[in-house]
Amino acid sequence: MAPIVGVIGGGQLARMMIPAAVNLGIELRVLAENEGESAALATTQFGDYRNADDVLRFAQGVDVVTFDHEHVPQAVLAALVAAGVAVRPGPDALLYAQDKLLMRERLSALGHPVPDWARVSDAAELGAFIADHGGAAVLKTPTGGYDGKGVRVVREAAEAADWFGSGPLLVEELVSFQRELAQLVARRPSGEIAVWPVVESMQRDGVCAEVIAPAPKSTGRVAEVASAMAVRIAEELGVTGVLAVELFETTDERLLINELAMRPHNTGHWSMDGAVTGQFEQHLRAVLDLPLGSTAMREPWSVMVNVLGGPPVGTMEDRYPALMADQPAVKVHSYGKTPRPGRKVGHVNASGAELDEVVFRARAAAAFFED
Amino acid sequence: MAPIVGVIGGGQLARMMIPAAVNLGIELRVLAENEGESAALATTQFGDYRNADDVLRFAQGVDVVTFDHEHVPQAVLAALVAAGVAVRPGPDALLYAQDKLLMRERLSALGHPVPDWARVSDAAELGAFIADHGGAAVLKTPTGGYDGKGVRVVREAAEAADWFGSGPLLVEELVSFQRELAQLVARRPSGEIAVWPVVESMQRDGVCAEVIAPAPKSTGRVAEVASAMAVRIAEELGVTGVLAVELFETTDERLLINELAMRPHNTGHWSMDGAVTGQFEQHLRAVLDLPLGSTAMREPWSVMVNVLGGPPVGTMEDRYPALMADQPAVKVHSYGKTPRPGRKVGHVNASGAELDEVVFRARAAAAFFED
Repeated sequence: MAPIVGVIGGGQLARMMIPAAVNLGIELRVLAENEGESAALATTQFGDYRNADDVLRFAQGVDVVTFDHEHVPQAVLAALVAAGVAVRPGPDALLYAQDKLLMRERLSALGHPVPDWARVSDAAELGAFIADHGGAAVLKTPTGGYDGKGVRVVREAAEAADWFGSGPLLVEELVSFQRELAQLVARRPSGEIAVWPVVESMQRDGVCAEVIAPAPKSTGRVAEVASAMAVRIAEELGVTGVLAVELFETTDERLLINELAMRPHNTGHWSMDGAVTGQFEQHLRAVLDLPLGSTAMREPWSVMVNVLGGPPVGTMEDRYPALMADQPAVKVHSYGKTPRPGRKVGHVNASGAELDEVVFRARAAAAFFED
Repeated sequence: MAPIVGVIGGGQLARMMIPAAVNLGIELRVLAENEGESAALATTQFGDYRNADDVLRFAQGVDVVTFDHEHVPQAVLAALVAAGVAVRPGPDALLYAQDKLLMRERLSALGHPVPDWARVSDAAELGAFIADHGGAAVLKTPTGGYDGKGVRVVREAAEAADWFGSGPLLVEELVSFQRELAQLVARRPSGEIAVWPVVESMQRDGVCAEVIAPAPKSTGRVAEVASAMAVRIAEELGVTGVLAVELFETTDERLLINELAMRPHNTGHWSMDGAVTGQFEQHLRAVLDLPLGSTAMREPWSVMVNVLGGPPVGTMEDRYPALMADQPAVKVHSYGKTPRPGRKVGHVNASGAELDEVVFRARAAAAFFED
């Protein structure tokens, strides 16, 4: 029998698992919320991921359940585990991708380098933290944030008045960083871990805009530290599947952990075309406890540029004739979404031997989807 | 709107168009004959490809119709064209992939090098051809043959007694060849043509078993002649989509055309992982009249080994743990079929810088699916 993987959530991450599943003969079943979502082709059921009955019904007959997002409530995850369903990553690991306060506590306890942080419940506590940290801080809602949502830079406690009252918030020092990095690894239940090269990611308005693999000018030390850190976190938290560790490389050359994600991640999209084993294939292998694939790069450099928003009129596909004629070696990925300002609707990958040329080609291709 | 491609036939060639379609945001609709075929995921309708009503109904709303196989009758194709459906490749081209006698006549008229051949309608004509060609010949049914079916080496006319009586047959000289090559190109309606490197293919019992890209030890001349020949044929016959030209490299160093296929072809499966643009993506681009992608190889060598038959017990997927642990850089493709002796159930691709090592890895991986 072909292995069956159930994915909760029908967004682009579930969608991009489809090609890997088709190639490997893995049956993919997707629980989507609505019709016409990115992973529509593999959607086998519609339902609410917050409803244990919907999710339990979806999980019947699958070999393993995994995720397109980290928003499935712990109570629903517990119900799956109680029903004997293999859930990967498991609830005890996923917790730290769901709740940033728990993540900061746990990573600190484990001795990992993180920005200075505190749990604050009112304006006075926030004000004290800001005063202690040079007059500015980053305030985050512990749960539910993504792509810059649920994150706010504050210089006065009053700026956060509307956020207090529904539980504690996470406040962090405003890190002075040279650049942002991401280290992706995949871990299978039996313990094997595969490590991709550390990458540099550039954000625009809090959203990942561009990724260069491997991170340019990364001394051996940075790559080594990032890789060792992500491997240790995957093991310590018992992560299964892909783990993305987002990092700050500070101006004084330390690496601090920014965020964790336990699923394929935007900073790993380059690997679909740039690595022997892309993150979506690897995630499927990992959650099925199959031996992991080679993470070697296919060419020296690989650059991913997100399509944010997409064309103001029409669809991404309308722009293919011009783009493809101009950039015959760029790989285009469309998520089948309606363009909307700021929305992640696709990405392009370019690979090659010369970084400048690869960056140029990727940016040139992505530009065809604008204006 | 996303472009919509309708594929007639639900086999592995339609299946392997799915990943390319998902990546590009192209909607793929498949007309399959039965449930559970390789392209089940994209099957939107069941029907008989020989029935014009079924096919016309399927074609409603698609931007272009293309094929998983070449068996759709000309009358059905004509009905599609009459209904205003874009059919690619068109009936006038596809004819020469459907009928080997017409193909031989046309290629001969165009001056292309082909084996000596004749149209024979009875034992006397066949006997005369055999006598004129050293006592042996290859007899072929003009239509319906594939993977060694409909082909027979004969030394006496009596060996073909059961084949006469239902129309003329094609008889050809038994070519003395060093090896078999295949030249794949893709052509779009507006005329652009993209050319992959010429490859060497090895057959076992008339079925493609292994392909090496590019063909080793091919002098510049062989590659140049093969490429020019395929480009000319694509133009002369007005092919749209992928065209595969199977060639004999004779012991006296000529290239003779063996067969034509007008769809993605087994000798092009290496390109899914070994070329910047694989044949399935290229076929979709070509039939949609989109600019074609780069056919550059990702690594110097790429080797494909077919999985013929598959495991005697269980499925291909049962063998993944051992295979993947042994060959982490090999790409596995399963067609979702039940193993059966001689059946094409999947293939593996390996790529790298050293041919011997790449061949070893591909064969080692494929061997995990045997016995």
